Amino acid sequence: MTTKQLITQIQKKKSFLCIGLDVDINKIPQHLLEDEDPIFAFNKAIIDATHHLCVAYKPNTAFYEAYGIKGWIALEKTIKYINTNYPEIFTIADAKRGDIGNTSSMYAKAFLEDLEFDSITVAPYMGKDSVEPFLAFENKHTILLALTSNQGAFDYQTKTVDGQALYKKVLETSRGYQNSENLMYVVGATKAEYFGEIRQIVPDSFLLVPGVGAQGGNLQDVCKYGMNENVGLLINSSRGIIYASNGNDFAEASAEKAKELQLEMESILKL
Amino acid sequence: MTTKQLITQIQKKKSFLCIGLDVDINKIPQHLLEDEDPIFAFNKAIIDATHHLCVAYKPNTAFYEAYGIKGWIALEKTIKYINTNYPEIFTIADAKRGDIGNTSSMYAKAFLEDLEFDSITVAPYMGKDSVEPFLAFENKHTILLALTSNQGAFDYQTKTVDGQALYKKVLETSRGYQNSENLMYVVGATKAEYFGEIRQIVPDSFLLVPGVGAQGGNLQDVCKYGMNENVGLLINSSRGIIYASNGNDFAEASAEKAKELQLEMESILKL
Repeated sequence: MTTKQLITQIQKKKSFLCIGLDVDINKIPQHLLEDEDPIFAFNKAIIDATHHLCVAYKPNTAFYEAYGIKGWIALEKTIKYINTNYPEIFTIADAKRGDIGNTSSMYAKAFLEDLEFDSITVAPYMGKDSVEPFLAFENKHTILLALTSNQGAFDYQTKTVDGQALYKKVLETSRGYQNSENLMYVVGATKAEYFGEIRQIVPDSFLLVPGVGAQGGNLQDVCKYGMNENVGLLINSSRGIIYASNGNDFAEASAEKAKELQLEMESILKL
Repeated sequence: MTTKQLITQIQKKKSFLCIGLDVDINKIPQHLLEDEDPIFAFNKAIIDATHHLCVAYKPNTAFYEAYGIKGWIALEKTIKYINTNYPEIFTIADAKRGDIGNTSSMYAKAFLEDLEFDSITVAPYMGKDSVEPFLAFENKHTILLALTSNQGAFDYQTKTVDGQALYKKVLETSRGYQNSENLMYVVGATKAEYFGEIRQIVPDSFLLVPGVGAQGGNLQDVCKYGMNENVGLLINSSRGIIYASNGNDFAEASAEKAKELQLEMESILKL
């Protein structure tokens, strides 16, 4: 998917919501456990109920790997289901991969080519040659971890390197990578006050923003400091939406929660 | 496996060799492609031919994910084969994972509990709460990326943070983590001159050292600066061993290459 197509979807749906499909088998409605593939059954119901309210889905690979082969089958079925039935949706493999060049190429092939995700999250610690293999895929997007939503973000990311915070150095350095137009960045909602300075470095890039809801981030603040003329934000919510209810009404309940966020986004877009 | 058991194996085998099982289907002998599971068939032959010459095997997950479900089946079969037939071998999931706390827990469960690897490599960028979930498993080991073997290591890892190189800060900070006795570190062989200073920070820890061979690192130099009284090194070689030949003799050829390295290690251990 091109960035332009993503922007068109945002305008059409009046939403820049991304729903995190982080499926924990202990948290889904019990009746689904009778299904042959409970994880996919859960995802399918959530997707069918919410696809018109969001522009992106983001399965975190950890939640699938935790179930071994069954988990990978559920992940494959989920991405295929989205791509077949809702091709207008932007898909994110939240995998946080990154390795030496030839190895990163294998990860890129796995997620962007074979599984046909539109994008993948990548960790920056190993530098340029660990990131560029992901950038080589046309109309695919590499979402680089910059400033994450967790407490550990303050361990290294905000420390000063060459006169600037490490996360800013990551942002700045990455702009010189080959095919850097395919870059987006992870910036946690829990650090809304940082968005202003981030926008000085990457004014045009899309930012994937986790941490609204369960982790305590505030949507209004993020938009105030982080939005650009093309919106430029994908706000992720996982647990707050997908576990809105664990009864038979779980899909409807997730749609209600997604609708709340979509309406809040619509009102922000009107300003 | 306990660290003590690993040290005993090193002494017994006179080897601190780790073999990287980075299987690329385009590089394995053609006749294996007729097998139902060529990746596992290749690994099994390599393992049977080399297990007495090395103390560890390290499959890099990228090479398995690249083949989707089939790849994951091959990975499962490979780790089970090692654990069943050669339980004295230390196993490393080279996965370079790392995420917010509850998500890292899922990765830890997947690799350390379900797949029963002895250890996993982890990226440090997201800080303490992204690493500690891996450390919670008794007699399992978390191998934190410190100074990697690639060119991109100079992008951030060697930059100065709080008056010291970032990789040193990663080493130092991690010593304060809960269950830090379960930590090992990745330090690339291509940067042998750094080992002296690294040993000042982590004198007792095991270091997993990639980059000998294909990437240009030198075994003698690494040992000179990096070895401690318990050896404290796992030297990895992947391509140099497993692709020694792509004919019918591939397993014997890999054993010959492994034997060369083992003998070099034996002579160093005698000094």
